[in-house]
Amino acid sequence: MRIGILGGGQLGRMLALAGYPLGLRFRFLDPAPDAPAGQVGELVVGAYDDPEALGSLVESVDLVTYEFENVPAGAVEWLTGRVPAYPPPRALETAQDRLSEKRLFEACGIPVPAYAPVSSEDELEHALASIGLPALLKTRRLGYDGKGQARIMDGSMASAAWRQLGGVPCLLERLVPFDREVSVLAARSRDGSTIVYPIVENEHREGILFCSRAPARIERRYLQEMAEAYACRVLDALDYVGMLAIEFFVVGDQLLANEMAPRVHNSGHWTIEGAETSQFEQHLRAILGLPLGEVNLRGYAGMVNLLGSLPPLEALLRVPGAHVHIYGKAPRPRRKLGHVTVLAASAEERERRLAQLFEVIERAGEPAPRA
Amino acid sequence: MRIGILGGGQLGRMLALAGYPLGLRFRFLDPAPDAPAGQVGELVVGAYDDPEALGSLVESVDLVTYEFENVPAGAVEWLTGRVPAYPPPRALETAQDRLSEKRLFEACGIPVPAYAPVSSEDELEHALASIGLPALLKTRRLGYDGKGQARIMDGSMASAAWRQLGGVPCLLERLVPFDREVSVLAARSRDGSTIVYPIVENEHREGILFCSRAPARIERRYLQEMAEAYACRVLDALDYVGMLAIEFFVVGDQLLANEMAPRVHNSGHWTIEGAETSQFEQHLRAILGLPLGEVNLRGYAGMVNLLGSLPPLEALLRVPGAHVHIYGKAPRPRRKLGHVTVLAASAEERERRLAQLFEVIERAGEPAPRA
Repeated sequence: MRIGILGGGQLGRMLALAGYPLGLRFRFLDPAPDAPAGQVGELVVGAYDDPEALGSLVESVDLVTYEFENVPAGAVEWLTGRVPAYPPPRALETAQDRLSEKRLFEACGIPVPAYAPVSSEDELEHALASIGLPALLKTRRLGYDGKGQARIMDGSMASAAWRQLGGVPCLLERLVPFDREVSVLAARSRDGSTIVYPIVENEHREGILFCSRAPARIERRYLQEMAEAYACRVLDALDYVGMLAIEFFVVGDQLLANEMAPRVHNSGHWTIEGAETSQFEQHLRAILGLPLGEVNLRGYAGMVNLLGSLPPLEALLRVPGAHVHIYGKAPRPRRKLGHVTVLAASAEERERRLAQLFEVIERAGEPAPRA
Repeated sequence: MRIGILGGGQLGRMLALAGYPLGLRFRFLDPAPDAPAGQVGELVVGAYDDPEALGSLVESVDLVTYEFENVPAGAVEWLTGRVPAYPPPRALETAQDRLSEKRLFEACGIPVPAYAPVSSEDELEHALASIGLPALLKTRRLGYDGKGQARIMDGSMASAAWRQLGGVPCLLERLVPFDREVSVLAARSRDGSTIVYPIVENEHREGILFCSRAPARIERRYLQEMAEAYACRVLDALDYVGMLAIEFFVVGDQLLANEMAPRVHNSGHWTIEGAETSQFEQHLRAILGLPLGEVNLRGYAGMVNLLGSLPPLEALLRVPGAHVHIYGKAPRPRRKLGHVTVLAASAEERERRLAQLFEVIERAGEPAPRA
């Protein structure tokens, strides 16, 4: 069985590394000739909307999937007319537009922070008046890793924020004073069966995921149940197939949905060692219609991204319980070059191991993004 | 860092899959154009003693290692003159000849079954008289998976056994009535540090490994200590670098060394999920001079080889705790096409899961080799 993947980044690379043991083969499409997945599988270099490149991707594959959601709608349409492709186009479309995403959450009865669509500076003024301050202005499309966002702490910042984002259609969101950020990773197979991983706690720095902990440092069992229920509602509403991640703010005893990703997700990398089935294998099982794998934890996992520069491999491997994942990408400030997962037998041991890991990363040079 | 591997079979393939997360690249040399490692890395097709093929392997690699021990001595010499290669040539030479192997074990104070070298039918008669019956005649070189062996249950079988093996130099060994077969997996790094995994219990069928259990069903702690001591003596005697496996017979409270493999080993495949560090990553850490990884177990692991034909992937994945590894090889009777590891929280659960797995394999068609 051959799988085509749109995108040849680290997510595609890790999908392939999880899929080879299942006897699968992989072909990637990516505009970058040095896309890291090209080191572990066949790479077609070309634009996502180039019919020739798309044709070369699908010509010898049985199934197509995506490692990122911002695939042009035309390309998705072209593909799905020729070869089975998962997750379904509607999931991609929804995740590509923050407004559609919010409306889906609401339709599923999932609370979200107060928001309003904004398509002019005037509308921004009105939205600020109704939603209140502080707030976050986000472009409706193509935002990731903190890009396409501007914070508005007082009214005088509104105009600059609007201009900074280029005057494109936006969403204004109330900046929620959250207790924690968490995500829930869930999979739905072609037969409609679903499975949800234990809640992950995420720490962002400068808008980029820095550290994930699974299980989250959250005692309240009902938050897990709530997250599971929300995830399953979204999966079913989209007739979804594959892995899906939803990020939430924990505010008191509520979960407010922030955004979703219709794919494997950075906050699920710990599953490679920390769960019985990794999110990468789970995604492949789901899109192939194979039985979903168990999601029980193998201990207390902590995942840290390696951003901008790589510490010496030797120093990383000296951290007890550390599992290193280097993506084969050229260093660039703030770029995700790899990640390390530590596994531990208790939450306390996890913290000690994470502290050792932070020290190695900080010693290595480029200062970590500010907390 | 680029690694060259002599041999492109499943061991090479799994070395690459373990090495990609460390940011390594791989190039393989194998005479077979469809060698399974070629699906996950660059494959040079050529004979192991073809200087042109060897040249093409080493031209862009920093380090060479082996996935099997029967590399011609000339090729090893050629290689080691050009690029660092681990494990050291002496380890390969020793493992290539059952007589050298036995003598090494004895030099290390490790008991072995009674044996005698045999290079003629006359010598075989004498050896049988001194060693006794039943006995096993083995070719000194190129035996694996039960090949190059003949059982001699009574004197009348001697001549046929000698002819069956082609009249090449052999070793006659007493057939030991063992309680169990076990193996010990150990690694030694370039700085001389060593680490030994918990003893593995192995079940062979028709000379081929069928099932491994780790930890072994052995209560006696001193057997583990004995195996560790023996492994470290062999590692140090050979100034070894990399993973090494030694197979033992358990006879009462003794361990008798059977044979060794200077490489990753089939009885260590369970380490991918069952140990903190897999034997494949461990081998790479050792030959790169990186810190060795922890070897603690993640539970009770059972590994079963998929021989000759592959059961449906879906049926295998329905076994709880099953992790499937397909090698991408064409089916052929008795050929190792993949393996499945089950992980369990107790020895009893492991047996239940193994029983489910055996059932799937037996249902799938080709009868499993007789126990």
